Formats: sequence, structure tokens, C-alpha cells
Amino acid sequence: MEDCIFCKIVKGEIPTEKVIYENDNFFSIKDANPVLEGHSLVISKKHFETILNLPSNLGVELLDAIKNTSFKLLEEFNAEGINVYNNVNEAAGQIVNHFHVHLVPRRKLDNVVIKFIDKDSKKSIELRDK
Amino acid sequence: MEDCIFCKIVKGEIPTEKVIYENDNFFSIKDANPVLEGHSLVISKKHFETILNLPSNLGVELLDAIKNTSFKLLEEFNAEGINVYNNVNEAAGQIVNHFHVHLVPRRKLDNVVIKFIDKDSKKSIELRDK
Repeated sequence: MEDCIFCKIVKGEIPTEKVIYENDNFFSIKDANPVLEGHSLVISKKHFETILNLPSNLGVELLDAIKNTSFKLLEEFNAEGINVYNNVNEAAGQIVNHFHVHLVPRRKLDNVVIKFIDKDSKKSIELRDK
Repeated sequence: MEDCIFCKIVKGEIPTEKVIYENDNFFSIKDANPVLEGHSLVISKKHFETILNLPSNLGVELLDAIKNTSFKLLEEFNAEGINVYNNVNEAAGQIVNHFHVHLVPRRKLDNVVIKFIDKDSKKSIELRDK
């Protein structure tokens, strides 16, 4: 994909920070605009628009990349948890149309909450496990 | 795990809504406390605390379950996108210590934003792709 920023990173046309982890089909790098310190991305080397376009047989390498990148982030940032998230399509907030998973290291005392907020009513629901 | 709510669902000790999709190692059901309509969970049939404890060879079935549950949710809720997220450990908001992935169907006009909010300063960063 000619204009895809992640394809350009894969081809070496855009310089990037150090690769955190990689295997045959995925690599991970720090996010250029982190929501919290250590925020990183696991990116497919081939161009797939979303996780729904990713062949299921890449699942082993995807899980391997998520786990190994997380282990490195937990250690590097002395973190105690990770938020793993992926947005499918523009309606869910996806901007770069090349599959990637966000990993955000978290600490018990980081004082952060994640909320789904209705833009009109400002009503919000905290994004926690139930 | 004796006191695990998801293990009790797997054993049939707690009744649950209709299973949306299942394969040998994962199944999906609606979340009992949805943040938005259609919010569902992909849950491992065996007890693993987090995605970091999940053997990587289960990745194909995990990806298969995420994709097929998403396809069903997109259709059922006439949705245009999905937020896929997973919390690793209490520091990241995990409450039930049995691996599960959240799937939240989204629409372009649902008027919702997701934000990381600092509880003290109330400063927030929108959770979007960069």
C-alpha cells in the first residue's frame, strides 16, 4: 500500500525507533504519540486493514508478539499491568488502516481511569472488567 | 478454579445467555454489564489468568473466536466497527482473573469517545489511533 505509514516503516522508507520485538509476521515499536509512558504498537508486516482481515493462521505469531512485547514493557517501565486494545474501522477510532494492537503499560498508582464518554450528555462508563 | 465465575459458566454451574460463538478453547457471550449495546466477551474455556499466561499455540483459535464473534456482532447490531480490548492484571483494570477479551460494537454516529483520564488533574487523552 503506497501511502500507508506502517507499510513505509516496514520497507524502511520511514525511520523508526528501535524494534522492541519481532517475528516473521509482526513487529513492535513505541507509539509516536503515547497516551501513557511506554505505549507501544504490535504491527503486522503485511498490509491487512483490520484484525477481521487477518488470516486466523497468523494467530500464534500475533499472540507471541503481544506476549513478548508485553513482557519487555512490564520490565522496562516497571509496570504492573497492560491495556491491550485494537480498534476495528473508523467507527471505533481506527485512523491508520493497517492492523495494529496498542499496548499501554499500567501501574496501580498511575491514577488513570479509562472511560467511554457520551459526547453530548457527558455521561460516562468506566472501562473495567465486570 | 473453584471460585472463578467464568470457570463456573464453563462447567454450567452458572447459567448464561446464549453462546455467540465457540471453538475448542474459547467461547463468547454477551457481557452482563455492557458499556454499550452488544458488548460481548471472548473467554478461554480453561483457566488462564491473563493473556500473558495463554499458551501461544492457542493464538489461532483465539483470533478465530475474536473474528467470528465480531462478524456476528457487526451484523446483529448493525455496527460499523468494534473496540477489542483486554486488561492484563488489576493495575490495568482486570477484575475477573480469567482471560477474556472485550468486544464493543461501535457506530459512526454513536457519539462516544474513549479517554484515558488522570483522576487528580482530570486531564485526559482520547484513545484513538495515531
